[in-house]
Amino acid sequence: MPFRDEAQFVQWLRARWPERAPGFDLGIGDDAAVVSVARGHDLILTTDLSLEGIHFRSDLHPPRAIGYRALARAISDIAAMGARPRFALISLALARHTKRAWVSAFYDGLAGLARRLGVALIGGDTAIVEERTMADFVAVGDVERGRALRRAGARAGDRVYVSGRLGLAALGLEMLKSGALGIRNVRRAGKRTARNERAALMAHLYPEPRCGVGMYPAKRRLASAAIDVSDGFARDLGRLCEASSCGAVVRENRLPLAEVTAGGKRELDPLELGLHGGEDYELIFTVPRSRVARLPAAVEGVPVREVGEIRRKRGLTLVRADKQETPLEARGYDHFEGLRA
Amino acid sequence: MPFRDEAQFVQWLRARWPERAPGFDLGIGDDAAVVSVARGHDLILTTDLSLEGIHFRSDLHPPRAIGYRALARAISDIAAMGARPRFALISLALARHTKRAWVSAFYDGLAGLARRLGVALIGGDTAIVEERTMADFVAVGDVERGRALRRAGARAGDRVYVSGRLGLAALGLEMLKSGALGIRNVRRAGKRTARNERAALMAHLYPEPRCGVGMYPAKRRLASAAIDVSDGFARDLGRLCEASSCGAVVRENRLPLAEVTAGGKRELDPLELGLHGGEDYELIFTVPRSRVARLPAAVEGVPVREVGEIRRKRGLTLVRADKQETPLEARGYDHFEGLRA
Repeated sequence: MPFRDEAQFVQWLRARWPERAPGFDLGIGDDAAVVSVARGHDLILTTDLSLEGIHFRSDLHPPRAIGYRALARAISDIAAMGARPRFALISLALARHTKRAWVSAFYDGLAGLARRLGVALIGGDTAIVEERTMADFVAVGDVERGRALRRAGARAGDRVYVSGRLGLAALGLEMLKSGALGIRNVRRAGKRTARNERAALMAHLYPEPRCGVGMYPAKRRLASAAIDVSDGFARDLGRLCEASSCGAVVRENRLPLAEVTAGGKRELDPLELGLHGGEDYELIFTVPRSRVARLPAAVEGVPVREVGEIRRKRGLTLVRADKQETPLEARGYDHFEGLRA
Repeated sequence: MPFRDEAQFVQWLRARWPERAPGFDLGIGDDAAVVSVARGHDLILTTDLSLEGIHFRSDLHPPRAIGYRALARAISDIAAMGARPRFALISLALARHTKRAWVSAFYDGLAGLARRLGVALIGGDTAIVEERTMADFVAVGDVERGRALRRAGARAGDRVYVSGRLGLAALGLEMLKSGALGIRNVRRAGKRTARNERAALMAHLYPEPRCGVGMYPAKRRLASAAIDVSDGFARDLGRLCEASSCGAVVRENRLPLAEVTAGGKRELDPLELGLHGGEDYELIFTVPRSRVARLPAAVEGVPVREVGEIRRKRGLTLVRADKQETPLEARGYDHFEGLRA
């Protein structure tokens, strides 16, 4: 048992993260957190569950990555709306059998990301439970009033853009699940293996929320709609289209697919991973044709690439490399498969 | 199994609560919620876990009360800071074996409270889990900038006030736990039993967050510090004093104790319940002597009563009815005892 009781756990927490930040003036431990919002700004709120056996597996994922990813997922929702992440609240129901080193690494992982992005940890709740560890991450961001990007808003003719590479995180998860890389070997293996394999592992374990990529078009009113890739490019583009009452055409030869070089993993199809892999936390956004010229090829070093076009007709269509058109289903490459223990 | 999968659950939710509210312009289902904050206002954020087997027991508590109480607890934190509750986000990890009627009643309970207080349900997350149900409730309120009440701020000489009655919720829990009233009999029993017993049951199952009581002194700058009674009057007053670097004297004959009339429950000491019972969700606040005259005897029909005084010397002292002074320990009448299944 890592802590005698909840009180001791809270004390441990407070001693480690006495966070302070602009616009926030109350430490963890009061009844609630007080934040001020700059004049003319909207606040963006999101909450994401991270459950042992569903979103992570303690025998597969290093605790540092579990904490990091849980926060990254929530922040990715803020990024998808073109907002700047500002604050986080974390509720943690910790399994009694957890070791203190696990909790420490879990918090180090999330606190590292929070610090790097200027996100203040301003509160939360804690409990000790008998079974599995569960966390709920609340992320709060802000954006100039009226500038938040939504899923709804794409129009026929708008170009579809995506950031970074697709399928990399799914490849990393496959590598972890195949057992080629046990949890203890990730770091060592990372040194041995090819650069792409390391990138895939990192994309799965430590995805980078695309805050800069989301804020760029939001600030300049370039994008008509946006969403982040949490459940797979096809599924999430489908959601954007559904919310916008439209469809889209996607060109295979434009997709920034991850290379599948991992040894013994050649049976994995890069297109399959890229379209349905999920957990990439890249951003999909749509840009009216008249504004396309104002979008750079990369934002803060992250490539953003046009991969298709919005059209009036519902549904998604994939134009294959050989020009053949096939319906693109938002179907379930279930990245949780095998994660459910 | 109440829902085929998470997607169906989310669909069910959305159809039931398409909430809209001033200052909130995005439905459940986008990446995050967008809220606007009135100029010159601060935002208050809090999050509270409600875990099966710790905060509630499915064999003891009606699902309607479980949903209601979980939201009431979070809103009580907002009330304790003198703020107006505005929004809520609810993350629910639902045990697979749960019946749909349970989920329905759970949401009816919380939605009823939310509607009555003008709190919009603006988002959340959902998952199906194998074991116990757990929920995380995020409540968001707002308050004129700089007017939020905190635990810190009480000064020697300030009067200590408390709202409503103390120990009523603990009495209600004792009645439930004793088995005198099975979960199915609460309503019927309520008609049979004495008025006080019904009040006790209601105080436990459906506590009223004291929003009006908190906002009154916050708006008028009457209070120097405040906290809500979640873990017991003595413990929570102790926390206020600790945060304010002071102590307090409390007078037994001033305490608004619950009457213990429940049949067969005469062994319960009203003072014990009132000082250590917990979960009353009444407010404790301190008022400088010079402003005491501006405080009415009741706010929106809820009595607020002076029960003691802040003093420089640390620690709490109880002045008994016979004028004897005894140290008042913030000790653990553990209201969870017997709740842990």
